[in-house]
Amino acid sequence: MGFESAVVNVTILKLNCPDAVGLLARITGFIAASGSNLLDVSQYTDTLAHWFFTRLAFEGGRAGSDPDGFRRELAVLAATMRAEWTLRPAERAIRTAILVSRQDHCLSDLLWRWRSRELNIAVESVFSNHDTCRPLVEREGLTFEHLDFSPDHKAAAFEDLAEKLRARNVELVVLARFMQILPDWFCREFSGRVINIHHSFLPAFVGADPYRRAFERGVKLIGATCHYATENLDEGPIIEQEVARVEHYHEPDDLVRLGRDCERLALARGVRFHVEDRALVHGNRAIVFRD
Amino acid sequence: MGFESAVVNVTILKLNCPDAVGLLARITGFIAASGSNLLDVSQYTDTLAHWFFTRLAFEGGRAGSDPDGFRRELAVLAATMRAEWTLRPAERAIRTAILVSRQDHCLSDLLWRWRSRELNIAVESVFSNHDTCRPLVEREGLTFEHLDFSPDHKAAAFEDLAEKLRARNVELVVLARFMQILPDWFCREFSGRVINIHHSFLPAFVGADPYRRAFERGVKLIGATCHYATENLDEGPIIEQEVARVEHYHEPDDLVRLGRDCERLALARGVRFHVEDRALVHGNRAIVFRD
Amino acid sequence: MGFESAVVNVTILKLNCPDAVGLLARITGFIAASGSNLLDVSQYTDTLAHWFFTRLAFEGGRAGSDPDGFRRELAVLAATMRAEWTLRPAERAIRTAILVSRQDHCLSDLLWRWRSRELNIAVESVFSNHDTCRPLVEREGLTFEHLDFSPDHKAAAFEDLAEKLRARNVELVVLARFMQILPDWFCREFSGRVINIHHSFLPAFVGADPYRRAFERGVKLIGATCHYATENLDEGPIIEQEVARVEHYHEPDDLVRLGRDCERLALARGVRFHVEDRALVHGNRAIVFRD
Amino acid sequence: MGFESAVVNVTILKLNCPDAVGLLARITGFIAASGSNLLDVSQYTDTLAHWFFTRLAFEGGRAGSDPDGFRRELAVLAATMRAEWTLRPAERAIRTAILVSRQDHCLSDLLWRWRSRELNIAVESVFSNHDTCRPLVEREGLTFEHLDFSPDHKAAAFEDLAEKLRARNVELVVLARFMQILPDWFCREFSGRVINIHHSFLPAFVGADPYRRAFERGVKLIGATCHYATENLDEGPIIEQEVARVEHYHEPDDLVRLGRDCERLALARGVRFHVEDRALVHGNRAIVFRD
Repeated sequence: MGFESAVVNVTILKLNCPDAVGLLARITGFIAASGSNLLDVSQYTDTLAHWFFTRLAFEGGRAGSDPDGFRRELAVLAATMRAEWTLRPAERAIRTAILVSRQDHCLSDLLWRWRSRELNIAVESVFSNHDTCRPLVEREGLTFEHLDFSPDHKAAAFEDLAEKLRARNVELVVLARFMQILPDWFCREFSGRVINIHHSFLPAFVGADPYRRAFERGVKLIGATCHYATENLDEGPIIEQEVARVEHYHEPDDLVRLGRDCERLALARGVRFHVEDRALVHGNRAIVFRD
Repeated sequence: MGFESAVVNVTILKLNCPDAVGLLARITGFIAASGSNLLDVSQYTDTLAHWFFTRLAFEGGRAGSDPDGFRRELAVLAATMRAEWTLRPAERAIRTAILVSRQDHCLSDLLWRWRSRELNIAVESVFSNHDTCRPLVEREGLTFEHLDFSPDHKAAAFEDLAEKLRARNVELVVLARFMQILPDWFCREFSGRVINIHHSFLPAFVGADPYRRAFERGVKLIGATCHYATENLDEGPIIEQEVARVEHYHEPDDLVRLGRDCERLALARGVRFHVEDRALVHGNRAIVFRD
Repeated sequence: MGFESAVVNVTILKLNCPDAVGLLARITGFIAASGSNLLDVSQYTDTLAHWFFTRLAFEGGRAGSDPDGFRRELAVLAATMRAEWTLRPAERAIRTAILVSRQDHCLSDLLWRWRSRELNIAVESVFSNHDTCRPLVEREGLTFEHLDFSPDHKAAAFEDLAEKLRARNVELVVLARFMQILPDWFCREFSGRVINIHHSFLPAFVGADPYRRAFERGVKLIGATCHYATENLDEGPIIEQEVARVEHYHEPDDLVRLGRDCERLALARGVRFHVEDRALVHGNRAIVFRD
Repeated sequence: MGFESAVVNVTILKLNCPDAVGLLARITGFIAASGSNLLDVSQYTDTLAHWFFTRLAFEGGRAGSDPDGFRRELAVLAATMRAEWTLRPAERAIRTAILVSRQDHCLSDLLWRWRSRELNIAVESVFSNHDTCRPLVEREGLTFEHLDFSPDHKAAAFEDLAEKLRARNVELVVLARFMQILPDWFCREFSGRVINIHHSFLPAFVGADPYRRAFERGVKLIGATCHYATENLDEGPIIEQEVARVEHYHEPDDLVRLGRDCERLALARGVRFHVEDRALVHGNRAIVFRD
């Protein structure tokens, strides 16, 4: 719900752990005892994997007035649950880097959503293996950095990129139609923090040139998939998918055109879910508490 | 989730009340203390109306072993919250009456979902102002009752119908394209227990002959709306809606054909949400915790 | 458009051939000269394959009053175009066999659409490798035939089935969740006349158990695909696809439930397109002139 | 199909007239005789209104080599059919003015599609009753003109606007969330050339504040409608509609956010259909030959 970042002093807790009796009661009891008012609770128990997932938004209380103390006490509680968790003020923008190649439709869409504050991100920099999108980025007053990803320089470029992401404490990397395959070490280091848009409804058409292959297969629906990048190309946890109906008269170029709208929407929604702490990964599945 | 009625000894609590600090903690704490294991928690706070809604599914514990005792204690807790609530075993089928006129597509679809146990209902009877659907109903081994709703007999027919619904403790009345307007007293008496399917995406095309009017307006989308019936025709709380794309070449008869699929789906889903205690009404809005 | 089978004396011509200048002018000129009134013209030129496709619906004229003479003259014209074509009165129902296993949701849906005349088919027989669906079929006054497809009898069963299809001049075979793989010779003999429903959005999840695999992959959309059966399993020309959004809380059983509605809709539409001569196959793609 | 403006020397004919026998044969015969090659033919007969609509795309021939001569001969043919028609080279961009108020999401989207050549328009100017969007427009190298639409100046502003549109031979006016009601004379003068985006699925929620009203009504689907502006507010011929599913937890601000994506898509598609001569208006209905 949009109110979370509008209301002052809202905190978001995201947590997952092995399932057990009374987990939600303990967590909500803890929050109530700290004087906060729960605004939104999402909870899901994977009964096949026996795993518990929750996201809570709450306002005021010690989480706002004494965040460090609150965090320490929460850590004690979470440890008893063997939980992974994150806690952060809703209003804080996520430090984000965008990676792009030549095509600018996703980038352009993200920039609009950033500028209009629909996405609560701070764009630290836009990196690219081409110079094509520089004007689009610089006219927004943002930094554009061209890195040389040609075969001989690719390894160094990824080292350079990673160093810059670390130096700036980048929390999220968005691959907005970035047409380079990430090295495994990069995927591992930034695991859970790299979001990609693939231009097909995965797992159909993994890999290159999906629209051409969709045309050849004669599908009646095309799509786009927003997912976390992992070492296995196009196989990371899926956050969001979008489809569009196509007809026999749509040629590959038409699929590209229709697909762009799917890509824009799926990526924007996926980034939003991540930025608002709505996406929780477990194994190769993403639990998404939509809004 | 489908598991709820599959698992033995699952209880569903549906509750709404004025918002306050710590409500969910108190309720989940109460359930945990009773020895039940929470399977699913849905919660929503209407921050504009300051109203709290929740649905909880839990297994085992005193709710199963001592239902009357559990209910008495819950009543005490709920009273402190000024809450409206219902509590029931998930596996119990809802006693349901279906009202129908001549068209059988929604009826036929509901009967399939009943027979295949997709919908956890017990069909007490099918009532109609026509005899058309009798064979379809009787071949399922169900009771079909023809009532005379002609102008002179309509008032008596509704009295008769209500009497039968009371006598059989019917909990849900589904208007599966029943083309008679319910009297106000009937809507009031069975408030929250009558679900209608209207053949347009409300609030567009309230009233008669929506497909003809949709054709004349030249809309590019038609739809169907599943809603609780109230005294105000086609204005009750909306549970579910479905749409289909139409083109200029679709004539009114085509809209009727395409609309049937929307009607079937919207009604089946709406009934399912009600039957699984996923729909909570407040004012003229229906909170629907989907699955 | 629904009017075609309603209007008396409507003829449908379906034709495809190598592209050339003036094809549509010649065909429509021929029809106009024969005294028919064109009701509907669909035309598509595949500019990559240089192939021309058309479907024309027309009323009256020599096609109605002297069908054999009309057909002979059309054959002469079509030969000059090296065209494949079919010609038939719109009102004639297509002789159809339905093959089914244990699950009855697609069968049940098709029977409703047949009974309500939404689908202009004549159901010659329902064949099955199980006896489960017999009551559903026989209560409609239709023939149900159980064939033994157990490993030792499978080859003979398909021979038997084919013999029966030939004997009854069956024009269309609908695999309504028939869980046996067709032998190659059968696919070849009935090529272009066998329609299958696969319970995934192809080409994702070819083969067995697609819902389980969709769950494991964590997709956010599931679907169903209606296609012509060919020797390559699940790889024939796609006629129609349908998708439904799913969430993390949907377990494999929920996907099965949600998928059933996709399967019903995609199969019903696909059969309709075939029956109304709206689907034209070229290579592995189906040109579908929708209505 | 995208190829039309890509291929050299393509002409588009759009035509509608009273229905009669042999119309399409005469038109396609005329085009074939002129030496053109038909690329795409769309045809529709409104059998209720007895009206014939067609759109033809063809390459080469006298339409390209002797356009004035071709036009004169076509005029003779069309006169015998009492047809309204337009003829133009596919590659010529449509001279377009965009009107906008404070919200820039539709404008921003249209500018991206113009810049990327997805929409074949030439943006003559952007007019506004506010200065908010000036930077967005001027950074594209386009003209932004602020007109004073305050109550005392509104009449003059519309005169001024109309004068500018006439002076620049503007062929299309796009109201991209322009929040001023057009005077009747303006609608009449520019009839068929003004496209509006309304932020609801018409005919639901005609007029002001549709998202607030949608929230209050508790709808489960919101939408946007792209239509030709006429003297009757929000009642002109509908070109395109788009919907999005909403849930109970979506507050009015969320509906606004979700609705923006519907508005962008419906407007972009509607403008595209007009610009490619795919939209033909008859009475209050728009025939749209999609691609």
